[in-house]
Amino acid sequence: MPELRKDPIVARWVVVNVEKPYLPQDFNVSPFSWKGATGCSFCTNNEHLTPPEIEAISEVHRAPNTPGWKVRVVPNKFPALKIEGTLDKQAMGIYDMSNGIGAHEVIIDNPDHFKGIPELTDIEVEYILKAYRSRSLDLRRDRRFKYLLIFKNVGVEAGASLEHGHSQLIALPMVPKNVKEEVKGARHYYEYRERCIFCDMLAYEAENGHERIVMENENFVSFCPLSSRFSFETWIVPKQHSIDYAEIDDNRIKDLAKILKETLYRLKKVLGEHPYNYIIHTSPVNTDAHFSYHWHIEIMPKLTRVAGFEWGSGFYLVFTPPEIAANYLKEVK
Amino acid sequence: MPELRKDPIVARWVVVNVEKPYLPQDFNVSPFSWKGATGCSFCTNNEHLTPPEIEAISEVHRAPNTPGWKVRVVPNKFPALKIEGTLDKQAMGIYDMSNGIGAHEVIIDNPDHFKGIPELTDIEVEYILKAYRSRSLDLRRDRRFKYLLIFKNVGVEAGASLEHGHSQLIALPMVPKNVKEEVKGARHYYEYRERCIFCDMLAYEAENGHERIVMENENFVSFCPLSSRFSFETWIVPKQHSIDYAEIDDNRIKDLAKILKETLYRLKKVLGEHPYNYIIHTSPVNTDAHFSYHWHIEIMPKLTRVAGFEWGSGFYLVFTPPEIAANYLKEVK
Repeated sequence: MPELRKDPIVARWVVVNVEKPYLPQDFNVSPFSWKGATGCSFCTNNEHLTPPEIEAISEVHRAPNTPGWKVRVVPNKFPALKIEGTLDKQAMGIYDMSNGIGAHEVIIDNPDHFKGIPELTDIEVEYILKAYRSRSLDLRRDRRFKYLLIFKNVGVEAGASLEHGHSQLIALPMVPKNVKEEVKGARHYYEYRERCIFCDMLAYEAENGHERIVMENENFVSFCPLSSRFSFETWIVPKQHSIDYAEIDDNRIKDLAKILKETLYRLKKVLGEHPYNYIIHTSPVNTDAHFSYHWHIEIMPKLTRVAGFEWGSGFYLVFTPPEIAANYLKEVK
Repeated sequence: MPELRKDPIVARWVVVNVEKPYLPQDFNVSPFSWKGATGCSFCTNNEHLTPPEIEAISEVHRAPNTPGWKVRVVPNKFPALKIEGTLDKQAMGIYDMSNGIGAHEVIIDNPDHFKGIPELTDIEVEYILKAYRSRSLDLRRDRRFKYLLIFKNVGVEAGASLEHGHSQLIALPMVPKNVKEEVKGARHYYEYRERCIFCDMLAYEAENGHERIVMENENFVSFCPLSSRFSFETWIVPKQHSIDYAEIDDNRIKDLAKILKETLYRLKKVLGEHPYNYIIHTSPVNTDAHFSYHWHIEIMPKLTRVAGFEWGSGFYLVFTPPEIAANYLKEVK
């Protein structure tokens, strides 16, 4: 009999296949067919192919838009939203409308076309995380923005249109639905229990034999949540309650770089090259504080397709129970 | 500048590309690579390859599990949920759990491996719709079930694992999250305006030049909603307020078969063979009545991939504005 589990934050049920769990090789994941670096606008020496850079991290002195960078942030050439203009929200019959004000930036993770995060050095991953922080701190000074979404798509199946490793930041003029739900769920729990739901999730895992914990260091835990939506879904959560990613200090960035790199490395070892997304879940900006929220990173391997059942219900089918997924990830050397 | 539009039912924002709309040929949709009928357990003469049928529609006298059927309903060989047992919900620390009680049935649309709904006769489509109704009426007699989800996956990209045309019905022991949200949104609107939001959507389209209306007949309208999530998303909505699909009468089934077949035919003509899901959105069962709800069918072509932006925010990027999509669909002969 499969098991139903309810996510305590957003009240989403998932169906966990505890009877005949899929092993990593049971997923029909085909390795990426790399097109290669030719003409890639994110590669070093092709700096002229992107719009002028917004910011870059470099270990050497360099002129903007020239080689020598470690991480480079540029405006998205085909932005989902546009930064120029006054935000104009209005009603249209029964609908609410707005012009498409926002920002859409690309964080080029590193100059090498073929390196993913597991192939970078710890310090190179720190640079990426520092670029996330710095862009988040800069963009929130624009009071039109209410949410700064940082995410990464890897592989065509996960929606990546370019194969050179990169992350994206989209600044939104309203708090998006999914964030509202999570923030609301955390607040409800906090109001009732006077504790943070994310802190309680970590405590629950620690008290229950660390079954779903992949690894931890001084400041972070990486684990497969009991009510994961996706097989091999893994979250990285700061141990100390903290609502806002951008408040992370350099010392914690070191720990986060290590655990992020190592977790992605283990996922790659177990699943082979596979499509995935990761998303930084953090609190809204330029709005009320959300003390009951707790920022974290959700890594979502895309090993199966979302179909009518998921779209129609919001239920998800989990083919590998998180306990078993975590065990695979734990065993990687 | 792109346009942001808010869905008035579930408060979801979408980003509509009104500047450079994608035309049908701009989507990178590859035609299906058909594996063919060999060994297909849904084909006629292979009735012995499925579990024993639950129900069938036939124009001739036939023994169960033999040829001669027009629509055949069988238990799913690999059910997401299982029908035997007592529903057992319990707490586990901060989580809520349940055993996986439910039903998972497959409605085999027709005996021919290669026919989709657009290739069937009107009466053959009516048979499918009648099978939906009859299974829904039967399963709700089981008081453990709170929601009966009927949907269809077509094409690998939309999650179909078998290519022979079929639909699925999953009976769930709790009202799923997405349905709760929609029902709640409709109720809020009703409480405030004392009108149905779906009826108001239809009225809005009629008052605004029928721009997004694809076609209509006496009992149904097919249109591309102003705040669609997907390019070429099309809804079929009964004109008369009605909360429950299963209450549909034979006369309305005739009209629904016609408009469903014709809408899917037009989508296929415009987009070519493409992956899609459709889902019947209807009210929960064995629970409070939901007078403010209005059942309908949502057809969701899967022309692009859902990526980190959508997963992280709940925003959707719409590449073809619904006005333009509807215009393409309207023009098909």
